[in-house]
Amino acid sequence: MRLKLKKEDLNKGLQAVQKVAQNKSNNISSENGLLIKALHGIIEFQANDYDMGIKITVPGIIEEGGEAFIANPYLMELTRRLPSDEIEIIKEDADTQLMIKGGKLKFECLTMNPDDFNEVEIVENGYASFTTTSVVMKDLIDNTSYACATDVARPIFMGTYLDVQGDQMTMVATDTHRLALKTATLDEPVDNPLQAVIPSRLLSEISRQLPTDIPETVEITAVRNYLAVQFGNVYIRTRLIEGEFPNYRRVIPSDFKCVVTVDRAEFTGAVERASIVAKDAQYNVINFIVADDQIKLMSQHPDYGTVEDYVPCHLEGQGLDISFNGKFILDILKHCHDSEVILKSKENSPMLVQDKEDTSCVFVVTPMRTK
Amino acid sequence: MRLKLKKEDLNKGLQAVQKVAQNKSNNISSENGLLIKALHGIIEFQANDYDMGIKITVPGIIEEGGEAFIANPYLMELTRRLPSDEIEIIKEDADTQLMIKGGKLKFECLTMNPDDFNEVEIVENGYASFTTTSVVMKDLIDNTSYACATDVARPIFMGTYLDVQGDQMTMVATDTHRLALKTATLDEPVDNPLQAVIPSRLLSEISRQLPTDIPETVEITAVRNYLAVQFGNVYIRTRLIEGEFPNYRRVIPSDFKCVVTVDRAEFTGAVERASIVAKDAQYNVINFIVADDQIKLMSQHPDYGTVEDYVPCHLEGQGLDISFNGKFILDILKHCHDSEVILKSKENSPMLVQDKEDTSCVFVVTPMRTK
Repeated sequence: MRLKLKKEDLNKGLQAVQKVAQNKSNNISSENGLLIKALHGIIEFQANDYDMGIKITVPGIIEEGGEAFIANPYLMELTRRLPSDEIEIIKEDADTQLMIKGGKLKFECLTMNPDDFNEVEIVENGYASFTTTSVVMKDLIDNTSYACATDVARPIFMGTYLDVQGDQMTMVATDTHRLALKTATLDEPVDNPLQAVIPSRLLSEISRQLPTDIPETVEITAVRNYLAVQFGNVYIRTRLIEGEFPNYRRVIPSDFKCVVTVDRAEFTGAVERASIVAKDAQYNVINFIVADDQIKLMSQHPDYGTVEDYVPCHLEGQGLDISFNGKFILDILKHCHDSEVILKSKENSPMLVQDKEDTSCVFVVTPMRTK
Repeated sequence: MRLKLKKEDLNKGLQAVQKVAQNKSNNISSENGLLIKALHGIIEFQANDYDMGIKITVPGIIEEGGEAFIANPYLMELTRRLPSDEIEIIKEDADTQLMIKGGKLKFECLTMNPDDFNEVEIVENGYASFTTTSVVMKDLIDNTSYACATDVARPIFMGTYLDVQGDQMTMVATDTHRLALKTATLDEPVDNPLQAVIPSRLLSEISRQLPTDIPETVEITAVRNYLAVQFGNVYIRTRLIEGEFPNYRRVIPSDFKCVVTVDRAEFTGAVERASIVAKDAQYNVINFIVADDQIKLMSQHPDYGTVEDYVPCHLEGQGLDISFNGKFILDILKHCHDSEVILKSKENSPMLVQDKEDTSCVFVVTPMRTK
């Protein structure tokens, strides 16, 4: 194999497969490493672990075709710093050494048998598929997947639910204490509804790769146990979580006695300050008392003092005395964008939080019993 | 006690004493925490642990004098985020609670008995003293103290040696494998020579506090076991390391067979790249072969490959084949400033590194035996 690549293209390719290639969560060496494949005029980088397979084509000149299977933790760090923009990758068929040349630098490393690499299969026929853009997809992932559980005992809640019906694409994540939901409208309705629970940490990796500077078309195809996501020169195949995701629509409250409109930045500042002493105490409890067009926040640490703060608000309906985990409130506020947010609740009931104008995102958080 | 301070001044005061106040290396509670003292029209913040005492005066209005001894890990984080520029600090004499008010926020926390605080003593008469500027002092600390040892078994090498004789102020640090020295000329020669070994981690704290935007006069006074450093509104008293620092002049080589001039940025890049595979292998060995006006660098990791690179240079004298710990070479290059550096050595001997123009800094590094 003899390839000539631009440093930028080499690094884009390596960056795309890097995380999957360096997966340390399993010890099966065939699922750790990356494949460089130059065949039929196409240079392709692949990585494939138990959870996710990723394939990216990169531009370059194939002087001699071939393939190389490399598991080297230094590869990316070195290629990023190569002292030239023109890179050569050379591997003689009879040799197990791969050489990377850039400027006067030569890096030589061992390769493994490419037959031991588990290539990324292309999912041809799914039961459902649809098309959206990288910007919409990333936005749905980033606004929902953070709310999932990290508790391995309940795997279904470690995923984010993708629910596509008609022209509505919804993503939902919950850890049972809080829930985040975002909906987008597709250009074309789907023929068959699509439901899948995608491990949230894999979604984060997909989100990292989705381009946002120039929106690209994303094609999503579902088979029973896998989902395929394709955009630009990237193809990703991700494992799904088996099991039934609970009916999220039932969890979203609709009956409120107290509706509060508050400046997002002011409210965020006050919750952040109240969290300083609360965050190391158990459950990060902040008490919110809404009355007379202001929210009173109170928090305390048994050894290090109490914080009391006030934020002006606009109140419709009754006042409220309720406590939440401050981290959950901050997580929600971080994902709001409008200058004002709306909080809707009643005593001892879940609170619904939304941007004032853009209602495509719905956040729900369960109160804490403190009395 | 009732004080009115600007948020900026409060935070400057807290920032200065914070690190010493939160010293976790001892469990003596009287040496953990800070004292706010408002007496005779002066507001003072103090912290004092076994190693270092620090005192800073801050501007503000004393409505009622008094003092408060606080050990609170959240204080700084809270005051930095207070929603107002005008801060009030209130403690009733009979009460153990301190209140900090800013805007609508109130923070209340417990205080301890101020009699339990070990106040920072002012060193009145030392055996020697001199004056320099904060910029010179910081420059000498930052260019030398990094080279000290971290091995507690040899405490003398965990310090940086301050040697003031006539109008020459020198700082030196070594871990016996490498040495860094920098000299500055004082405006006024000292009456009595001053020699002290200052714990390098305390010097780093002093360096952090020395202002460089506007140079300030620094007064240094030495007593047998302590050094006092005073600048602006800050007074620092630091423990010294007992014992004799070795004669550093004898360690600096002066007989060379190979003198190399090399571009600092190019050389740094090559050493960084060679270090990528070497850094996790034992001792971070990089082999340097100087010949024909170029330096060849070679490094290897037993499992992950070899790097070979070349940097053009100007050679006077004989060629050289020598190996060093790449980290030591990078540490030196980080502290050089000229566009070119000079390397002087001979086979199997320590190498001296200096900026080409500014020779106030001297770096020495011992080679590694690889054969």
